[in-house]
Amino acid sequence: MGALTPARGVKEPQQERSRATRLKLLEAAVACLAERGWTGSTVAVVAERAGVSRGAAQHHFRTREDLFTAAVEHVAEKRQGALKALAHDLPPAGSIARTWMIVEEVVGLYTGPLFRAALHLWVAASDEEQLRDRVTALEARVGREAHRTTVALLAADESVPGVRETVQGLLDMARGLGLANLLTDDSARRDRVVAQWAKNIDAVLSAPPSYPPS
Amino acid sequence: MGALTPARGVKEPQQERSRATRLKLLEAAVACLAERGWTGSTVAVVAERAGVSRGAAQHHFRTREDLFTAAVEHVAEKRQGALKALAHDLPPAGSIARTWMIVEEVVGLYTGPLFRAALHLWVAASDEEQLRDRVTALEARVGREAHRTTVALLAADESVPGVRETVQGLLDMARGLGLANLLTDDSARRDRVVAQWAKNIDAVLSAPPSYPPS
Repeated sequence: MGALTPARGVKEPQQERSRATRLKLLEAAVACLAERGWTGSTVAVVAERAGVSRGAAQHHFRTREDLFTAAVEHVAEKRQGALKALAHDLPPAGSIARTWMIVEEVVGLYTGPLFRAALHLWVAASDEEQLRDRVTALEARVGREAHRTTVALLAADESVPGVRETVQGLLDMARGLGLANLLTDDSARRDRVVAQWAKNIDAVLSAPPSYPPS
Repeated sequence: MGALTPARGVKEPQQERSRATRLKLLEAAVACLAERGWTGSTVAVVAERAGVSRGAAQHHFRTREDLFTAAVEHVAEKRQGALKALAHDLPPAGSIARTWMIVEEVVGLYTGPLFRAALHLWVAASDEEQLRDRVTALEARVGREAHRTTVALLAADESVPGVRETVQGLLDMARGLGLANLLTDDSARRDRVVAQWAKNIDAVLSAPPSYPPS
């Protein structure tokens, strides 16, 4: 076996290094997007921040759009994995403390650097044709997944009228709280809203307001 | 009386023309921001769109920041005036139809071109020091006013624990629905969420979940 066909023991560390480089680029891309916005975020800036050569960055991601949509997707998946893992650490079903923890974690999906990065990507996509379709598809995937996980954690029965829309509204509220946190630290107000809406969601899910409207 | 001191009959049409020019600039600025984003929005572009000379535009607004913050504020005030005026056209207090109409109108504050314009301004402000303070202050004013109007329309008693946070969460949800509408037409889903959350808000406000948590 010559240098062109490396033995397994040599090949694996190479694959691992390649994966590690890709991860460094993805994390650097999200941080860059959150701090500098879309106009300030180029492949070159991200490569430098990740300590990776520009050629290596372009080997992993052919275009700027590839890099930044992959980055937001990667971090969103990681964050949602953490939300799912929460299932093992929750207080017993039926307690308000459980609902409160779930609402807090769901809202946590939409605050912090990931949301800031995603927001920059959304706003850029609303103006740029070549980004729009990809970001729309990404947004739909991430949104569906967040909905599914929240329904499972809350043990919400979507066959009951109104339950699905109640959970959707909760996710919209979480997104709105993320927006409110963009310019100022909104955490004190947010904590109070989360605490109250955990109670509201709990009450609504245990006795959904009936159809037809009174 | 010479040409330098025009009689009243001449002066008033001049003031009116000046006010009309200002209004044209404000409306054009919001439309421009909604369509082209912050980077594509300059005083020159807005002046052209409004059919006003660049000199006249600069007479009314000294800086780009002046023009765009004034524009978002002006349109937000107009929109909130419409929300307040709704009070006269509402179904009787205590009906779910009334709550539904209020929730729909509140959500309407955050969908459409005004929200799109405001969102571009927010995101730009999160990256630009000279915009940040002004937009933060504007956002706080507009948010307080929306809260006050919503509380009044719902006849919500904020001395009852949890009522204030319930209304705040509704406004956060409305903001999140605005964001969901940025890339795609979300109106069908939104209508269902609004219909259900009107019921949820109605149920919670008529019997707020009690403290302390169970």
